[in-house]
Amino acid sequence: MKGVERIGVSLEKELLSRFDELISKQGYQSRSEAIRDLIRQRLSSKRLSNPKAKAVAAVFLVYDHHTTKLMDKLTALQHSHILQTISSIHVHLDKHDCLEVIVLRGRVGEINKMAENIISLKGVKLGRTNFIATEQE
Amino acid sequence: MKGVERIGVSLEKELLSRFDELISKQGYQSRSEAIRDLIRQRLSSKRLSNPKAKAVAAVFLVYDHHTTKLMDKLTALQHSHILQTISSIHVHLDKHDCLEVIVLRGRVGEINKMAENIISLKGVKLGRTNFIATEQE
Amino acid sequence: MKGVERIGVSLEKELLSRFDELISKQGYQSRSEAIRDLIRQRLSSKRLSNPKAKAVAAVFLVYDHHTTKLMDKLTALQHSHILQTISSIHVHLDKHDCLEVIVLRGRVGEINKMAENIISLKGVKLGRTNFIATEQE
Amino acid sequence: MKGVERIGVSLEKELLSRFDELISKQGYQSRSEAIRDLIRQRLSSKRLSNPKAKAVAAVFLVYDHHTTKLMDKLTALQHSHILQTISSIHVHLDKHDCLEVIVLRGRVGEINKMAENIISLKGVKLGRTNFIATEQE
Repeated sequence: MKGVERIGVSLEKELLSRFDELISKQGYQSRSEAIRDLIRQRLSSKRLSNPKAKAVAAVFLVYDHHTTKLMDKLTALQHSHILQTISSIHVHLDKHDCLEVIVLRGRVGEINKMAENIISLKGVKLGRTNFIATEQE
Repeated sequence: MKGVERIGVSLEKELLSRFDELISKQGYQSRSEAIRDLIRQRLSSKRLSNPKAKAVAAVFLVYDHHTTKLMDKLTALQHSHILQTISSIHVHLDKHDCLEVIVLRGRVGEINKMAENIISLKGVKLGRTNFIATEQE
Repeated sequence: MKGVERIGVSLEKELLSRFDELISKQGYQSRSEAIRDLIRQRLSSKRLSNPKAKAVAAVFLVYDHHTTKLMDKLTALQHSHILQTISSIHVHLDKHDCLEVIVLRGRVGEINKMAENIISLKGVKLGRTNFIATEQE
Repeated sequence: MKGVERIGVSLEKELLSRFDELISKQGYQSRSEAIRDLIRQRLSSKRLSNPKAKAVAAVFLVYDHHTTKLMDKLTALQHSHILQTISSIHVHLDKHDCLEVIVLRGRVGEINKMAENIISLKGVKLGRTNFIATEQE
């Protein structure tokens, strides 16, 4: 395959056998694939520790849709921002609560700032943000 | 307001003033709202530490859509499972990579197991899972 | 008590009763104490997101003390640094492995950098760092 | 070397070069060492997700030593428990606050329970717990 390199890694037999057991439980079909995933996660979490890193994020919100004007404010926040909202999902959880997942691009620090603004709105009950570093800067 | 209670909380002046400063930066309009959010987060993270807790989760994946049959496998996994996929978003990140956010219901342990199975598929480069505890058991 | 203020917080009865249940299980004797702890944790994690914040940290290491010169290198690193090592504990885990907890003062970014240097030493098997923001800047 | 195995790992050139850059910054002298560390962290965090896993933990506390009887209670808790306290460090942070790091052995769930009990004591301002899975069960 083009652009693929093969490296050698030495490790203790016992460490290797525990690793093989774990990744087979998780469903990996090769050690290379499992090790590539570990490396990608490490690189990604390292890059995301920089507030200026470009990222794609999913902001995950639970809110009471009865709260006056909350949905207007949410929409305004998404539009007013230097962040680029890509897409969103809206899910009805129960009689009161909605879940919304907003996928957006931006820099880590700016996304965190916007997420804080959203979570602090009256009616928003819970919020979390998930980041993935995008490869190109 | 029906069903709302008012409690008194005593705290050091200096702690209170640092808290006021933080929440005003985040955009909160009242201390009560900020404290309710802290309480909800604490309750939620406590419940999610139980693998049997019911939750709604967003599984967040980056994958190369050129990988043979990956998308078929992803779809099959979503359908084969005791988990209930609610909705999903698909975003084109660049020439190679897609982002998919799958929102699903289930128990924390089962969602984690399925997420591991998905992340271990060849072609899936990164994955993260975000949970929110659902109120009713 | 001098310097203590009392504020009112309103919250839904159901949220309050779930909070009361949680904190009584954890051993809290008053809601105020539990809420103060939530506020302190929030303030602390916010401050620690700034790499320049002053902190006290515990670096937690597992290493094989048979590795040639590892302990010399560990000691040298602790002394060479702009960080201020306060104290350390050394625990014999088993025939091969030692645990060392190094408590030090410094700025979050510098402590992370030093922790990475230590963890990357041959013979160091695992490492984690725990931060606590110090109040005075 | 006895008990060491050498495996081959294939990965994209670009992923490899970003990994090489990261680990050289962190101070690693070989890829094998960096990959072994990733594998150990993965195995460790997987094992620690089981509340019954045996672990060594460091409980990290900040408290006001003026609080009546707090230190007696802390000592009593450490002695009353099925957990095995191995060692502790006490550090004077400032006029009011002390930092204590308590290193103990036990099962993850039990250590978390005890840590919650300690953190909920009046006078304890902040607490965190760091776990390392011990190899032998």
